Amino acid sequence: MGLESYVVVHNIAKRHNVGTLARSATAFGVSELILVGRRDFNCFGSHGSTSHVRFRHFHSLQDAHLFLKEKDCDICGVEITDDAMAVNQHPFKKSTAFLLGNEGTGLSAKECEICDFFVYIPQYGCGTASLNVTVAASIVLHHFGVWAGFPERTRDGNKFSVAERPLKQARQNYCIETADAIIEERKSRRENASNGFFDESENGTASSNLLDALFVDD
Amino acid sequence: MGLESYVVVHNIAKRHNVGTLARSATAFGVSELILVGRRDFNCFGSHGSTSHVRFRHFHSLQDAHLFLKEKDCDICGVEITDDAMAVNQHPFKKSTAFLLGNEGTGLSAKECEICDFFVYIPQYGCGTASLNVTVAASIVLHHFGVWAGFPERTRDGNKFSVAERPLKQARQNYCIETADAIIEERKSRRENASNGFFDESENGTASSNLLDALFVDD
Repeated sequence: MGLESYVVVHNIAKRHNVGTLARSATAFGVSELILVGRRDFNCFGSHGSTSHVRFRHFHSLQDAHLFLKEKDCDICGVEITDDAMAVNQHPFKKSTAFLLGNEGTGLSAKECEICDFFVYIPQYGCGTASLNVTVAASIVLHHFGVWAGFPERTRDGNKFSVAERPLKQARQNYCIETADAIIEERKSRRENASNGFFDESENGTASSNLLDALFVDD
Repeated sequence: MGLESYVVVHNIAKRHNVGTLARSATAFGVSELILVGRRDFNCFGSHGSTSHVRFRHFHSLQDAHLFLKEKDCDICGVEITDDAMAVNQHPFKKSTAFLLGNEGTGLSAKECEICDFFVYIPQYGCGTASLNVTVAASIVLHHFGVWAGFPERTRDGNKFSVAERPLKQARQNYCIETADAIIEERKSRRENASNGFFDESENGTASSNLLDALFVDD
């Protein structure tokens, strides 16, 4: 089994960021995009790529941690901590899951606890304290792909070749779910809403299947 | 005079991409963001960083080209051409201006003509033909900063330090303009609109000063 990369998304507040993240994830050969807590997501910005990304869902960070450790993954926090290493130095050792912080507050203490190490992206200018979360994640995933030596995708003119999209499935912006999972999901959605984790104001119809309507360039 | 980087934005259709681009540009020490054709821009996504980025405006690509050649800059197209070099190989020689293609169609033949060389970002997955334009630009600017050895910004806890914002100016989302420039601008805006270059549907108030209202995390 070769090297693999994973992305773990926990409490990302702006759902369109998950869509753009999915586009970068598939471009950089990410094996799975792991959503913790929130199950549904808005695919705006994914440019159709969500149908090529494998999604997995866990209700808690602990469950995601267990899954990744069974896969023998390092967990790498993307955060400007004191001991974080510059990502362009490629401080990787094996298959790695990248844990992204919330847009506003970065990684919480609880999130940092499950990380084996941290990377950051050096900044040179004085005008912004941090990068957009999708931009930061994309730079990190790009470097992991270079380090891992993933084979480059063939091209078709000035674009990389895109595989045929899988057949449409009902509700394909959800992970596969069972009755128990739906109950659990409703409960966690109520909790998330009461915690103010997610900004519901941007798109009231985000829970319906918007994938095909949103295959647009961003 | 040390190494400098510039970003040239020509016919970017989604204006929020310019805002997120400005945030990355200031993070990666870009000297100026050069807008060609369209003068006004929506700062959504800039996270307040536009007040720290120097903007410059040209009505034509030829004028931008002349300006950059007087600065002895290489012009680097960000595009997946046959002779494009992988950006992680750092094929840079001196101060460089990065020319970004339109989200939908990439660089036009006319745009490619003024480029001294091209870089692309290797992709490994099968799910998307290209990256979001802001993500692609950010990866390229990051690599240029690493290659150029720009000094790293000091930190304040888990964030990079942000300089004080300059005093507010009226209409700060415009470049400085003269009466002649305003006439020229109105003309080019009519032309742009009739060419269908810009999607005006997203935000009808984009020409007013939205900067302070839009200092939000994206």
